[in-house]
Amino acid sequence: MTVQSILIDGAWVPASAVSTFSAVNPNTRQPLSDVYPVSDWSDIDRALEAAAAIADELRRATGSAIAAFLEAYAARIEGRKDELVAMAHAETGLPVSPRLADVEFPRTVNQLRLAAAAAKEGSWRNATIDTKGSIRSGFLGIGPVAVFGPNNFPFAFGSLSGGDFAAAIAAGNPVIGKANSSHPGTTRLFAEEALQAALAAGLPGATVQLLYRTSHDDGKRWIADRRLGAAGYTGSRHAGLQLKEAADAVGKPIYLELSSINPVVILPGALRERSDELVEEFCGSCLMGAGQFCTNPGLVVLLDDEASRTWMADVALRFDESPRGTLLSPAVESALTSSVEALTGAGARILTTGSGSDPNRCSRPNTLLFVSGDRFIESSEGLQTEAFGNASLVVLCSDGDQMVRVLESLEGNLTGCIISARDGSDDVAYGRIEATLRPLVGRLLNDKMPTGVAVSPAMNHGGPFPATGHPAFTAVGIPASIHRFAMLACYDNVRPARLPKWLQDDPGQSDLWRWVDSGWRQGAI
Amino acid sequence: MTVQSILIDGAWVPASAVSTFSAVNPNTRQPLSDVYPVSDWSDIDRALEAAAAIADELRRATGSAIAAFLEAYAARIEGRKDELVAMAHAETGLPVSPRLADVEFPRTVNQLRLAAAAAKEGSWRNATIDTKGSIRSGFLGIGPVAVFGPNNFPFAFGSLSGGDFAAAIAAGNPVIGKANSSHPGTTRLFAEEALQAALAAGLPGATVQLLYRTSHDDGKRWIADRRLGAAGYTGSRHAGLQLKEAADAVGKPIYLELSSINPVVILPGALRERSDELVEEFCGSCLMGAGQFCTNPGLVVLLDDEASRTWMADVALRFDESPRGTLLSPAVESALTSSVEALTGAGARILTTGSGSDPNRCSRPNTLLFVSGDRFIESSEGLQTEAFGNASLVVLCSDGDQMVRVLESLEGNLTGCIISARDGSDDVAYGRIEATLRPLVGRLLNDKMPTGVAVSPAMNHGGPFPATGHPAFTAVGIPASIHRFAMLACYDNVRPARLPKWLQDDPGQSDLWRWVDSGWRQGAI
Repeated sequence: MTVQSILIDGAWVPASAVSTFSAVNPNTRQPLSDVYPVSDWSDIDRALEAAAAIADELRRATGSAIAAFLEAYAARIEGRKDELVAMAHAETGLPVSPRLADVEFPRTVNQLRLAAAAAKEGSWRNATIDTKGSIRSGFLGIGPVAVFGPNNFPFAFGSLSGGDFAAAIAAGNPVIGKANSSHPGTTRLFAEEALQAALAAGLPGATVQLLYRTSHDDGKRWIADRRLGAAGYTGSRHAGLQLKEAADAVGKPIYLELSSINPVVILPGALRERSDELVEEFCGSCLMGAGQFCTNPGLVVLLDDEASRTWMADVALRFDESPRGTLLSPAVESALTSSVEALTGAGARILTTGSGSDPNRCSRPNTLLFVSGDRFIESSEGLQTEAFGNASLVVLCSDGDQMVRVLESLEGNLTGCIISARDGSDDVAYGRIEATLRPLVGRLLNDKMPTGVAVSPAMNHGGPFPATGHPAFTAVGIPASIHRFAMLACYDNVRPARLPKWLQDDPGQSDLWRWVDSGWRQGAI
Repeated sequence: MTVQSILIDGAWVPASAVSTFSAVNPNTRQPLSDVYPVSDWSDIDRALEAAAAIADELRRATGSAIAAFLEAYAARIEGRKDELVAMAHAETGLPVSPRLADVEFPRTVNQLRLAAAAAKEGSWRNATIDTKGSIRSGFLGIGPVAVFGPNNFPFAFGSLSGGDFAAAIAAGNPVIGKANSSHPGTTRLFAEEALQAALAAGLPGATVQLLYRTSHDDGKRWIADRRLGAAGYTGSRHAGLQLKEAADAVGKPIYLELSSINPVVILPGALRERSDELVEEFCGSCLMGAGQFCTNPGLVVLLDDEASRTWMADVALRFDESPRGTLLSPAVESALTSSVEALTGAGARILTTGSGSDPNRCSRPNTLLFVSGDRFIESSEGLQTEAFGNASLVVLCSDGDQMVRVLESLEGNLTGCIISARDGSDDVAYGRIEATLRPLVGRLLNDKMPTGVAVSPAMNHGGPFPATGHPAFTAVGIPASIHRFAMLACYDNVRPARLPKWLQDDPGQSDLWRWVDSGWRQGAI
């Protein structure tokens, strides 16, 4: 049995493995042939040591050098696109086309190039210059970053290819990726190209390192290690909270994306106006990719009237008619089963669900549940269980006041949608709903389902706990996402030649935005 | 016995007190006559309820309304300056002049006015507009903020007058202040004026509320309450870490300023060049205000050579000759005694300290300690004990390598200073020292002692843990300090008229900076 090597300090080396694992093809339920190591502490220690040794060099690297790496990397993975797509398909069951090849892959490459442009241009640093006080400041790389990527986006949120990776590199940090156990092979292919790209750009080999898996205890020790600057984690709430506790105890920044049920409020006027259209939109958003999105609409809030019940019945019909998507892994499949049980245990009733499991692939029937507003308020914790996958819960509220109380009982979420009538008949209700929902969600949408997280400078893929660990940061959207992996660094009376170039009077580039005394300016001062 | 009232929801009302306390005049060691309540949970609950009820209103308040409040407040406290100065002097022992009347008071009023200007102008929101994607985002008030002010700046960091207060209000949040127990009367006077100013500006009474003290358990419950948006705490590490743990467990942002020893590295060339000057500067920085500053230089790192020993002896002489300042309270006095004992217990030796305590006022002799670099590295945790007050520790390093190792062993600090020769002879050493120190400190200084935190947009009064709880934020410096009390709020496809004014195409002001697509712009789009 050949066990795959880990990437440490520029070299593919055998892991000090305590055990091994293989990914499973969810379309066949069969383990894939590649075998990956579960590293012990010594592997993590080597990676941290190598990363710490080059942290200062990367922190000082020019934006152009960082950009050259990211651009070379983007080009290299384009050259291996077919292989990456095939591997990711085998490991996650996500469709080759359009999902992997035509949506996620281009998004990923685009994200890397946007990060390259941001690194080169440098406005993400928020360079701030007090000309009279001889005080200058801005964001500086925070040091080695550990990235724990999720199962559901092997490319766009991958540990060594996704948004956290791109942001951490753009800020000038070495990255140590921990592959998601459901797609280690995909992460390995990325790591191969990232290493070559880093070397070609003249950056040290330890700029990108890769481990496949560790014990939970070693993971916590890793997160709290003095040599680490920060961590990014996207995944289950349970594991994320353990890492958060370890990081918090030593004051180490950790950026988490944990769980979100993404409430969608449909106001009565909108249902009157366009019920069928909303059935279509909702089912598309909820069942696409078997609902395995952080922003999947897991909760729909309606007034309990005839129109709502009709809408709900129509959705149920569509759920029945729609094919069930493949789930990412046996673990996702069993977690979804447990979550649906938790919802019914808390009082939700199943409106529709198919029967039985599929012996040949990981999947579950499309499932629609419903519950009264009274019951939701009573058992609000259990009824907010995230059912990650193709399931959603409808809450039927007795009146507008109850709708507000249902929303008031929610935890923090990534998104919140309010669908209202075009003719203005819902506008009064909108005001009350918005006032309640706004502080609870990172992104507020109108007349649009929450899936589809645009890579835009104005995007916020974040939100109050437990959607994330801190409501001031976003995981998507360049340049803002870069700030997560930076520290604020002030230079007080530091001699001009010793300042980073981007804080010197002449930064050597005309496009850099800097806050000079009392406003944003470009160019030299 | 009259017990002072607390300020809840616009009214001065009796507390539900479990006990009472009085401040002590450190210049006489006598308790002051005013008696203040220690509130039970019901007082906190009422304050949170009142704050939560107006959070949406404040979040939507225009920058002009917020500014009107802050400006009216600044004017009102100028009208009571003499009374405030007298009260603060009685409660803290800080000199009336220049300290309270001529330095801290003007700084405080200036800070409030800068916050007013920032609120009005609005660039702190980082408004970001993606014109093509119909996505807009920016910072929005996070909700009710609890401010726990420190003992050492009754005005400039006061719970209802200082930087945290100004920043939280500027972001559009209600503030519930917890007075520092060493100066409750000063905080009460501020609260009286803040309430009147809020009402005059048309803001609700619950914009500013005041409690004097709570039990530790109630404090933790307060910090973790669902109705709270965030907290700001400046004070002892022990109490701060307890609050942090409670806040972290529920993912609630808490901005802490805990402890910092502010290393000062003096390189040999600088000592050759200007030893006397550096004795002067260091003693001024270390003994001013009896050393009771967050940025007090508590650690000096030198090469162990004759020049350094001479410098150290000269400092000791100056310590002996200098009057000992009054400490803020009996608690500060005993904590300083314990800290010096902790340092000697960890291996530091006392070079000079006077003898005995002063029966009439709170004070301790000016104390200079020293230790070898070897010993520092060996017992680096104990030797990093913050001795808050007029004490400092000199580390004598055998060579440049050891100097680097000493710095490598440091925790995060607010500041780090490197003093080097003007003639360039220290420049090689500077590079190594800077590379080690830079990621460990929020503010790096050259040729200048760390005390004196300028109110500048480029200031960073922050730094890695345990100096603060998160290295991306600053407690001083407007507009950056405002971000701490804000959440990132995205509006996706939200109908134009429903957007906050500052995100609409025409924000109604020409000076607002917004990131539009790919750069900062002013004016309408």
